[in-house]
Amino acid sequence: MYDATKPYKKEVLNLIKETWNTPYVNVKNNVVEKKFSFNEYHHSDGIGTKGIYHWAKKSFRNAVIDSLAMNLNDLAVNRAVPYAVVDHLFMPEDDNKAILDIIRNLSFECKKRNIAITGGETSIHDNIKGIDISMAMLGFVEKPKLNKFLTGDALIGIESNGLHSNGFTKIAELFGREFRNEFIEPTNVYYDLINRLNKKFIIHGMMHITGGAFTKLKDSLQGNDAVIFNNHKLKPREIFFDIYKRKVNDEDMYKIFNCGIGFILSVSKSDVHDILDEIKEFKADEIGEVKHGNGNVIVHSMFSRKKVEF
Amino acid sequence: MYDATKPYKKEVLNLIKETWNTPYVNVKNNVVEKKFSFNEYHHSDGIGTKGIYHWAKKSFRNAVIDSLAMNLNDLAVNRAVPYAVVDHLFMPEDDNKAILDIIRNLSFECKKRNIAITGGETSIHDNIKGIDISMAMLGFVEKPKLNKFLTGDALIGIESNGLHSNGFTKIAELFGREFRNEFIEPTNVYYDLINRLNKKFIIHGMMHITGGAFTKLKDSLQGNDAVIFNNHKLKPREIFFDIYKRKVNDEDMYKIFNCGIGFILSVSKSDVHDILDEIKEFKADEIGEVKHGNGNVIVHSMFSRKKVEF
Repeated sequence: MYDATKPYKKEVLNLIKETWNTPYVNVKNNVVEKKFSFNEYHHSDGIGTKGIYHWAKKSFRNAVIDSLAMNLNDLAVNRAVPYAVVDHLFMPEDDNKAILDIIRNLSFECKKRNIAITGGETSIHDNIKGIDISMAMLGFVEKPKLNKFLTGDALIGIESNGLHSNGFTKIAELFGREFRNEFIEPTNVYYDLINRLNKKFIIHGMMHITGGAFTKLKDSLQGNDAVIFNNHKLKPREIFFDIYKRKVNDEDMYKIFNCGIGFILSVSKSDVHDILDEIKEFKADEIGEVKHGNGNVIVHSMFSRKKVEF
Repeated sequence: MYDATKPYKKEVLNLIKETWNTPYVNVKNNVVEKKFSFNEYHHSDGIGTKGIYHWAKKSFRNAVIDSLAMNLNDLAVNRAVPYAVVDHLFMPEDDNKAILDIIRNLSFECKKRNIAITGGETSIHDNIKGIDISMAMLGFVEKPKLNKFLTGDALIGIESNGLHSNGFTKIAELFGREFRNEFIEPTNVYYDLINRLNKKFIIHGMMHITGGAFTKLKDSLQGNDAVIFNNHKLKPREIFFDIYKRKVNDEDMYKIFNCGIGFILSVSKSDVHDILDEIKEFKADEIGEVKHGNGNVIVHSMFSRKKVEF
């Protein structure tokens, strides 16, 4: 729970309180009352090494969206509806303006989605160079369903917004002190779209392309192969080609970075047209297929004529 | 939710799974089923700057206890029973042995108290020098009660185990590269004791002495003064005198450090004897009183004849 001993903390507390009355919960006197009785799904994530750039550029709104996106997109994959978030802010110095800016944006984004901020902490850390916004996100699951990429499915890809929040250890290694605007672009929030698609269509499997990038697909293949084509519309943005030029090989590109594809859906081939038609907020395309195989991910690289296999 | 793509992650997942069946919840296929319907209390905290020392000395068991203590003691203050924890581990490099060690200790401590690990994340951070173990802890509250230090109450103090997890920014500033064993001693877990006391006695108010130390008492005074004596049995350990010698004044000592007192109870004077009799696991004593006043905290310093007022 937040305490409000300092004046700026009272402002912080007020912003948090604005999130406390939702269709799902009521928060009063530090106590959370739930208005639903579904089973739950709990997740946590943050923004990692990317926080160096957000701190340097004071891009706190993007930092909030990055952390929210990492959590919301995971909840989308697990068909959970978020109802509460408990945040933990890490900062290298006590910067009241930054804290207020972060909480203002967090409160705004949470209110939009009926997520109550039910607890939180700000740690001033001597040993961190940037910020992190760690969140534990709690959701409820009406109809639990495991993600399975089925033989014969088509793979639909949804464009990424650039690097998103992964691969920044590599970025820092490759670019050193050089800064690019692409380093602070926020991760796409797919949650709202996926939630809508899940209500209208049968989605067999989903994957948010984050840490581990395309290797993560292996978990949901159950012996099938996932094949990613290179003749689709989701071309990697320039920043990925710049990375590739710095002597990162094709395998590492697809192991570390999303390379233009932020989210993947595995669906019946007959549904592809209707689903693509429904996706208006992002560029999307049929990017591959699921075939009988050995549980491998085969990516036809966009950067060369090579084929990468995981 | 944890994913288990790498072999060591499977071991991690197995340790986490050991916590999944408790009297309060069942976790299955990533979904948390609750067996209770009380209101809830959510909190988050970690170990902060102290993580530099835990990483340097590989004192991961103590690090886990530090983070658990910070959360459990807060839940105790808010009369909540923990049922789930969502952790977020921050490390400067991918150290499988360290991760396993941390999760093994976390799993062990959680099993003891029927806390399920319902989600978690490990972030390898380029920009952090030590570790942090951030936790969001979820508890249920059967009988919510606000903490009020009442006029005429006696204050019972419970000894600290040394520095606990606060004031480490100051420690790093004062001691530089010097290391003391006291820097990695874990925070006392008061939760189990307080939970027991709450069932047997009427506790008007409670406070875990952490960041802000004795200034935190102000929040619960409602116009009363809290007076802390210096003729009680909870003498500060040597490390506090060492800090005082490095030219930290009395006011800062009691604003930054627990100075020997880790937890404070505000109770009727007539209950003091029975409560002290019940506290067997820690040294405890009557350390002060609550008087009609102006909402101030008055501490008679253990380091000099000075009186500190907040």
